Amino acid sequence: MIIVMRNGASNEELVAVEERIKELGYKPHVIHGDTRNVVGAVGDERGKAILQSLESMPGVENVVPILKPYKLASKEVKLERTTVVIAPGVAVGGDRLVVMAGPCAVESEEQILETAHAVKAAGATVLRGGAFKPRSSPYSFQGMEEEGLKLLAMAREETGLPIVTEVVNPRDVDLVAKYADVMQVGARNVQNFALLKMLGKIDKPILLKRGMSTTIQEFLMSAEYILSEGNQRVILCERGIRTFETATRNTLDISAIPVLQEQTHLPIIIDPSHATGHSSLVPSMCYASVAAGCDGLIVEVHPHPEVAVSDGPQSLRPADFKAMMDKLAEFAKVVGKKL
Amino acid sequence: MIIVMRNGASNEELVAVEERIKELGYKPHVIHGDTRNVVGAVGDERGKAILQSLESMPGVENVVPILKPYKLASKEVKLERTTVVIAPGVAVGGDRLVVMAGPCAVESEEQILETAHAVKAAGATVLRGGAFKPRSSPYSFQGMEEEGLKLLAMAREETGLPIVTEVVNPRDVDLVAKYADVMQVGARNVQNFALLKMLGKIDKPILLKRGMSTTIQEFLMSAEYILSEGNQRVILCERGIRTFETATRNTLDISAIPVLQEQTHLPIIIDPSHATGHSSLVPSMCYASVAAGCDGLIVEVHPHPEVAVSDGPQSLRPADFKAMMDKLAEFAKVVGKKL
Amino acid sequence: MIIVMRNGASNEELVAVEERIKELGYKPHVIHGDTRNVVGAVGDERGKAILQSLESMPGVENVVPILKPYKLASKEVKLERTTVVIAPGVAVGGDRLVVMAGPCAVESEEQILETAHAVKAAGATVLRGGAFKPRSSPYSFQGMEEEGLKLLAMAREETGLPIVTEVVNPRDVDLVAKYADVMQVGARNVQNFALLKMLGKIDKPILLKRGMSTTIQEFLMSAEYILSEGNQRVILCERGIRTFETATRNTLDISAIPVLQEQTHLPIIIDPSHATGHSSLVPSMCYASVAAGCDGLIVEVHPHPEVAVSDGPQSLRPADFKAMMDKLAEFAKVVGKKL
Amino acid sequence: MIIVMRNGASNEELVAVEERIKELGYKPHVIHGDTRNVVGAVGDERGKAILQSLESMPGVENVVPILKPYKLASKEVKLERTTVVIAPGVAVGGDRLVVMAGPCAVESEEQILETAHAVKAAGATVLRGGAFKPRSSPYSFQGMEEEGLKLLAMAREETGLPIVTEVVNPRDVDLVAKYADVMQVGARNVQNFALLKMLGKIDKPILLKRGMSTTIQEFLMSAEYILSEGNQRVILCERGIRTFETATRNTLDISAIPVLQEQTHLPIIIDPSHATGHSSLVPSMCYASVAAGCDGLIVEVHPHPEVAVSDGPQSLRPADFKAMMDKLAEFAKVVGKKL
Repeated sequence: MIIVMRNGASNEELVAVEERIKELGYKPHVIHGDTRNVVGAVGDERGKAILQSLESMPGVENVVPILKPYKLASKEVKLERTTVVIAPGVAVGGDRLVVMAGPCAVESEEQILETAHAVKAAGATVLRGGAFKPRSSPYSFQGMEEEGLKLLAMAREETGLPIVTEVVNPRDVDLVAKYADVMQVGARNVQNFALLKMLGKIDKPILLKRGMSTTIQEFLMSAEYILSEGNQRVILCERGIRTFETATRNTLDISAIPVLQEQTHLPIIIDPSHATGHSSLVPSMCYASVAAGCDGLIVEVHPHPEVAVSDGPQSLRPADFKAMMDKLAEFAKVVGKKL
Repeated sequence: MIIVMRNGASNEELVAVEERIKELGYKPHVIHGDTRNVVGAVGDERGKAILQSLESMPGVENVVPILKPYKLASKEVKLERTTVVIAPGVAVGGDRLVVMAGPCAVESEEQILETAHAVKAAGATVLRGGAFKPRSSPYSFQGMEEEGLKLLAMAREETGLPIVTEVVNPRDVDLVAKYADVMQVGARNVQNFALLKMLGKIDKPILLKRGMSTTIQEFLMSAEYILSEGNQRVILCERGIRTFETATRNTLDISAIPVLQEQTHLPIIIDPSHATGHSSLVPSMCYASVAAGCDGLIVEVHPHPEVAVSDGPQSLRPADFKAMMDKLAEFAKVVGKKL
Repeated sequence: MIIVMRNGASNEELVAVEERIKELGYKPHVIHGDTRNVVGAVGDERGKAILQSLESMPGVENVVPILKPYKLASKEVKLERTTVVIAPGVAVGGDRLVVMAGPCAVESEEQILETAHAVKAAGATVLRGGAFKPRSSPYSFQGMEEEGLKLLAMAREETGLPIVTEVVNPRDVDLVAKYADVMQVGARNVQNFALLKMLGKIDKPILLKRGMSTTIQEFLMSAEYILSEGNQRVILCERGIRTFETATRNTLDISAIPVLQEQTHLPIIIDPSHATGHSSLVPSMCYASVAAGCDGLIVEVHPHPEVAVSDGPQSLRPADFKAMMDKLAEFAKVVGKKL
Repeated sequence: MIIVMRNGASNEELVAVEERIKELGYKPHVIHGDTRNVVGAVGDERGKAILQSLESMPGVENVVPILKPYKLASKEVKLERTTVVIAPGVAVGGDRLVVMAGPCAVESEEQILETAHAVKAAGATVLRGGAFKPRSSPYSFQGMEEEGLKLLAMAREETGLPIVTEVVNPRDVDLVAKYADVMQVGARNVQNFALLKMLGKIDKPILLKRGMSTTIQEFLMSAEYILSEGNQRVILCERGIRTFETATRNTLDISAIPVLQEQTHLPIIIDPSHATGHSSLVPSMCYASVAAGCDGLIVEVHPHPEVAVSDGPQSLRPADFKAMMDKLAEFAKVVGKKL
């Protein structure tokens, strides 16, 4: 932390700030500037948030954090990239791109089985599908709940694809864990710390989606919640951030890929479906994400998007998904990976 | 919903869209334009989200919603403004401005009692204080939990002030309800639908904070979750939205006050502390909010902000809070309200 | 500037950074931290932007600016608040609130005269009206140009109200200055530095609007462009920033008022019409702005908004403007000002 | 336009709206809904903005535009993609990716010549370099002006590379056109309509950068300003938009590539340097942009970023640029293009 004193702050005010820094267990270090002084506080990075309160002291202009508040998620603690094993032969973060595909919501046995076979045939290695759906309207379809989980398990049985599905309520963690291979935390729950802490205690990979207005630093702090409870298998997922632009549902923050790679050892996948909101934009965003270096993709595929109960406009038809996968293999090759 | 056909869409495509609209239970109505056709879908507004999937049909350019998706929260269902009674003599939405004040977090018996007495003396009629704290870092203070709730209850006992406190986990709803007069849903949980549904089933007023990147329409949909479960006592709280500006912690969306008043019958209060993040900016934002027509305020007050475990920089000292309240009374008078 | 070294940066890298800081005319000051070192660069604040390039040096993690890059606009250079005289008896920044009112665009002699008389009768002391209109579409009305300026001058003649009007092209500065009492720089031109520099050389007050995505710091840097050329009569105008919210045209950043008052001595007015985009929201935003401490308002008024060639939806009718002004006087009194 | 009537609007109000639509030259078409009526206005799309003023009529809730306001930039007017010839053998929009590279600012003869030779050797086909620099601080280097243009011309002479450089003042259009092969409009001037109109009248390709907070629709309207004046050679450039994220200078809106390709025939290039602000992020964003289907790139390269007078942190060193270009060729091949 750097504490910036006001121009004209008195010496007493400066001394009081130094004293308070010491009381909080840090070592103050004053730089005497031309027009004002600044004080660096040296010590353990993790608890430094408490130093923000110094802003309330007389003579202090503001307090500037200069270090990252996460530890376990950072490359300073673990340099080699993490590989998260999802199922035998399926791992995120290695030299194979992992493509997770399936419908937004599980709607029926027929729908999920048809989709599972189609995405498997096209090369997907994980099946996605929502059983608990967080919908902005209480009047929209809320998911098939445990019935949906059973259908997902049936689809896994038939195709061999491991399944990723969302959990929205801490109460349902055990229930969802009974069926899922990967537990998904949706964008709206990225700072649902009660849920994150519970997921930190189970032995399942966690797919953590970035929130619509979550900074990369906050995103890593949310990952840190899971890691600090003991679960090291966290997969990060960028899925678009909220901006002023309305041509797309959200704005895919593609530069989050290299930024995250500089800051964390955790693997990173991209959700181009929620990011764009329109299926015609999905393939090019898949190609771009792989070219930028992501470890995988999660893509919405529906056999009949025009009758989907949710997210129809952003779901690829199986044939379009297949065409996309074929092209994707070429990009994967350039980055030294395989599908 | 308005379905906009592509320039050059065939008649067959148009007919298919009309058929699909009918299948979904709506009545299609075509407007033949100079360069393209548009189709209105007439029928019950609540289920209209399903029509979005028409965007996946051939010949469709896009689907434009023109109506609001909430019902119970809207003025079309209930014209007179709602008054939410919190405690005998304390109601939000009437002719008295309700000022809720207290520390970000309950830290100790001494701290909460000192604050409670101070804010009461200054004219506050509700005591705020967090016992469960959603913090972006797992290494930050997470709240005193039930111990904190007990201290709040003790402060109520001593001062007579009803208390508002946050619940972050659906599991804790009953526990918090045992102590709180008003249950607060924090900004990070505005779309924690599992929590909202549970709060819709209890008999307590709910203080629902707008999320950092929640549109006003989504905000009202979250209120609708609570209302549609039966609990009609919802108080809306604007607390700043996330923008590119970094001079303030968030950007207070003051125009949300009249916008909400046009769209909903629910009362609206303002949290200038989280919106601005700096105590020096709080008083003027309180004045502005009252002038704009809000029903109340929720303000962070701490006896010693420089040693606060959280949100010190945005907490007013009791003396500053008192000065603010005195001035506020003058603004209240202009808008025909009392403190 | 604070230069943050990477964890593990070598001593040679640190020394190279210190050397480079000296070469650029600053004094390096190293703070040795637990996990990394940081270097403060002490010296003249104005040229410090050049230090950003140190980020390209080996071992440097990032460069954090801690001081404001503006000088003449800052309170550190001039503590007392600036009052900008517009015409005899009309000054922005004193104890009278200045209300500028009139149509978005000058459309005809009849329209501007009718409006001028109406706003004067209601208590406005400056007439606004656009003769050069920056419109996002080339097919929209672009303004009456010099003809419009002449009509404004005629309205001034008849009513005695000084006039504020926009200049969009550096080429037109002399032409507009021939007629205008205050030269307006629109939001889209806030970083049109060629225009700002020219306006810094004339002897007229400048009304500088904040851009849709201009930070407060950038806004003050734009003011600094004018000030540094010699023209000290700058009036700042907040008019809404662009956010994700679509219920309003822009989001009025009301907290910019106290933030600017802490950072600059220049007077600040508010444009609630462009901020909200809907006339029904304008009065409450006027009240809020005055309560928050602004020095004035600029409001769109049109005798017949439903036939306005531009910005009809956000223009008040004269009767509504009159009602707003009457109420405004009461708020003004509370803040110790007069209309 | 769709005019949405209020729930409960009277028949007289509806008739008045219909009448007004006819007066403005459009044909009203009423859809009678369950709870309210909506009126479509059929007619020429270009002038429809005027219909927005209907929002001020009694009984009108709001006015929803459903069509795009641009014409010449749209694919409805011209289906085949436009190729903009810059110099013999260099065209943007064809089957060769065009890479423009060079320093942010021309600083000296040595610097620009060294860079020009280096980027040419690496495969760039256009040299970029700023002679007129719009800087947010008046105290920062403002560019070498005509002297800089002369040095760029000298570099062209030596290397054969055509040059792209920015013009910021309408007054300088002729001067810059004397030297430049492509005239650049910077992000801050995207709605400097006076400048756009002048550039619409000259016979040079225009590189139009998207503004920091310009929607895609507004961006195309700015292109329309140039096109409607007669100049058809417009190259669009996405360079990052302003969002809440601070890890990058701006957020690269990579999905703007397919969105623009669906809406316009104009070629699209990407500026990853300004988008990210950090040179380490530039190569992956180049790869992603090409994979997403862009027509070219504009990249900042500086022989010694640590001493650059501007934008050092985001400038690639020549060796890194060369490595990036080699990899880029592989991605280009996958999308069927050549460097």
